[in-house]
Amino acid sequence: MTPGRPVPPPLAKPITLDTGETGSTTLAAAYGATSPDSGLVPLTLARRAPTADDVEIAIEFCGLCHSDVHATRGEWRVPPYPLVPGHEIVGRVTRVGSAVKEFTPGDHVGVGCLVDSCRECESCLEGLEQYCERGNIGTYGAADPRHDAAITQGGYSTSVVVDRRFVLRVPEALDPAAAAPLLCAGITTYSPLRYFEVEEGDAVGVVGLGGLGHMAVKIAKAMGAEVTVFTTSESKFDAARELGADHVVLSKDAEAMEAANRSIDVIIDTVAAPHDLNPYFRTLRLDGALFQLGLPADEMPPVSPGLLIRRRLAYAGSLIGGIEETQEMLDFCAEHGVASDIELVRADQLNEAYDRMVAGDVKYRFVLDTSTLQDPSERADA
Amino acid sequence: MTPGRPVPPPLAKPITLDTGETGSTTLAAAYGATSPDSGLVPLTLARRAPTADDVEIAIEFCGLCHSDVHATRGEWRVPPYPLVPGHEIVGRVTRVGSAVKEFTPGDHVGVGCLVDSCRECESCLEGLEQYCERGNIGTYGAADPRHDAAITQGGYSTSVVVDRRFVLRVPEALDPAAAAPLLCAGITTYSPLRYFEVEEGDAVGVVGLGGLGHMAVKIAKAMGAEVTVFTTSESKFDAARELGADHVVLSKDAEAMEAANRSIDVIIDTVAAPHDLNPYFRTLRLDGALFQLGLPADEMPPVSPGLLIRRRLAYAGSLIGGIEETQEMLDFCAEHGVASDIELVRADQLNEAYDRMVAGDVKYRFVLDTSTLQDPSERADA
Repeated sequence: MTPGRPVPPPLAKPITLDTGETGSTTLAAAYGATSPDSGLVPLTLARRAPTADDVEIAIEFCGLCHSDVHATRGEWRVPPYPLVPGHEIVGRVTRVGSAVKEFTPGDHVGVGCLVDSCRECESCLEGLEQYCERGNIGTYGAADPRHDAAITQGGYSTSVVVDRRFVLRVPEALDPAAAAPLLCAGITTYSPLRYFEVEEGDAVGVVGLGGLGHMAVKIAKAMGAEVTVFTTSESKFDAARELGADHVVLSKDAEAMEAANRSIDVIIDTVAAPHDLNPYFRTLRLDGALFQLGLPADEMPPVSPGLLIRRRLAYAGSLIGGIEETQEMLDFCAEHGVASDIELVRADQLNEAYDRMVAGDVKYRFVLDTSTLQDPSERADA
Repeated sequence: MTPGRPVPPPLAKPITLDTGETGSTTLAAAYGATSPDSGLVPLTLARRAPTADDVEIAIEFCGLCHSDVHATRGEWRVPPYPLVPGHEIVGRVTRVGSAVKEFTPGDHVGVGCLVDSCRECESCLEGLEQYCERGNIGTYGAADPRHDAAITQGGYSTSVVVDRRFVLRVPEALDPAAAAPLLCAGITTYSPLRYFEVEEGDAVGVVGLGGLGHMAVKIAKAMGAEVTVFTTSESKFDAARELGADHVVLSKDAEAMEAANRSIDVIIDTVAAPHDLNPYFRTLRLDGALFQLGLPADEMPPVSPGLLIRRRLAYAGSLIGGIEETQEMLDFCAEHGVASDIELVRADQLNEAYDRMVAGDVKYRFVLDTSTLQDPSERADA
């Protein structure tokens, strides 16, 4: 536990979500933030009783995403508190609603960044729910219009109830803990690689070697690409090669960058701090693209239009992936033996894990073992 | 003639290009710059005798491109002087080399921004000579490696000799003077529209209504698109509609820009001065792209990655077009009755025309009538 961060006692009264549904709610043990500087503390959630279309899931594992840190600390916007983060959820189905035919209790399933969308706009109809024109419904911190605008609460908890349309099937070939980060880090890197139609022999560059970056390397390799990792630190060379990178380039070495000139088809840039992209554009071949996935809080240095013009390059963005594509990604990962490199953490290690994530001290994703949530009174630091 | 700009007398001695070819060179009357501040002055060029693969062209018309101003004035780099600009060339074939089967004397032909490339790299083999990995050979100011590194001289002249591979067929349905600007302004806007695969019913935005912008409007309309012109000046509304624009939006009117939110599939941005692109990205739909065609001398304000991420947008560049695509564009324009709106100028009006181009005072392209070059001693201001 970080010194100086106050730890409120577990709430005596559960956060009752007034779901307006018939049937009884269930209580879930959880960890969440009660204010920007509360850190993560034990909470109790009331989860709605499954409606006809709902799937109730006993969560086994939930990945820790850097977004969770920003969100709980109110670094992007002040969220509704209390806030239980977590959108890399893997668990087993416990109950299903009467209209649910595709899942049965005992199935291994996952939930990613979205739990709903308008289901009607052009984006939704194309299976691109993440780009819902009315705004998608995030797995935590979003007002859920189909459930009385109750605020959604995420996966650092023992259970969750989600509409069947937003539940993914987790192939049994995947280790459930290592599969959890696929639901955000995996799909966020898989989607632009697929959108760019990466295939055998293409050259893929990856900027940054964190949770997203290490997934980008593994997925691009599984797609048959030749992968170059760009890193600011020589200390990451071995790690990059262990993940499967064919080449590693020290991005602050101008000569090495020059040697990589016109060698890459598509770059997946996972760095969320402002950085100059122009040296990376110089490494792209004709018709290449750089997808920026991280969202820096501060302004980025401008991209030189001349670089874009001279090789018909694109500076592009991409946001997670749609539900259908997320299923495709899970199946792809199962087929190719791809999963995240993880470090399992207990609930009582969450705050320390956040600090280590901010410091970049994780290879490459923390995953919460939700069995450690079960009995908060027995926590080691209680 | 702009006061204060010295006008050297016509050169007594022709600029003899030592082409190393057999056969006799021919002399061409021309206008060009002899220094960054010489303005355009009468010059005499020696054109090489056609080799086996060459086509000799009697130039009838040559469009005036803004690049010509930058190049002759040394605003991008100091070019080799004397420099005869012009890369929107239309004329008639006068002689052909023994290996030329596709053209015969009398044919109406054109020459655009390129007169050669390496012909071997991946880009060249794909018909994308403009992106030649070894650097394309520009129509003027470039050392021509296949002709003893002689500096190429452009179309403000009475004749030119060009390899058959870089000569375009100008359909007889096109007015030759109005067709000249198609060779640069036309193909530069046509190519990104085709690359984006614009089709019937797509929404195309055009930023800036100059030489390139007005071609973008006409070509996009001919492709069946719904066209929105973005302009900083209400005075251009009528002109935009006359060109065929379906909508005109005052870009400095925040409310009008907000009303255009998510209404455009692809934007052709022809403005060469630094400007904030973020308001335009907000008008793009999912998977939209903004192609920047102009190259500002100063840094552009940064593009917000959040905008790119939230709708999977692309900020892209595009450079003229390949030879095959330029032919396709000419045929397309002939089929759809598309040509440039032009103002014909005499040789003795070139300097004034340059000043008017810089002031944005042309609707929409000046074209030099090269018959006025024939006898410099009879110029009105001689």
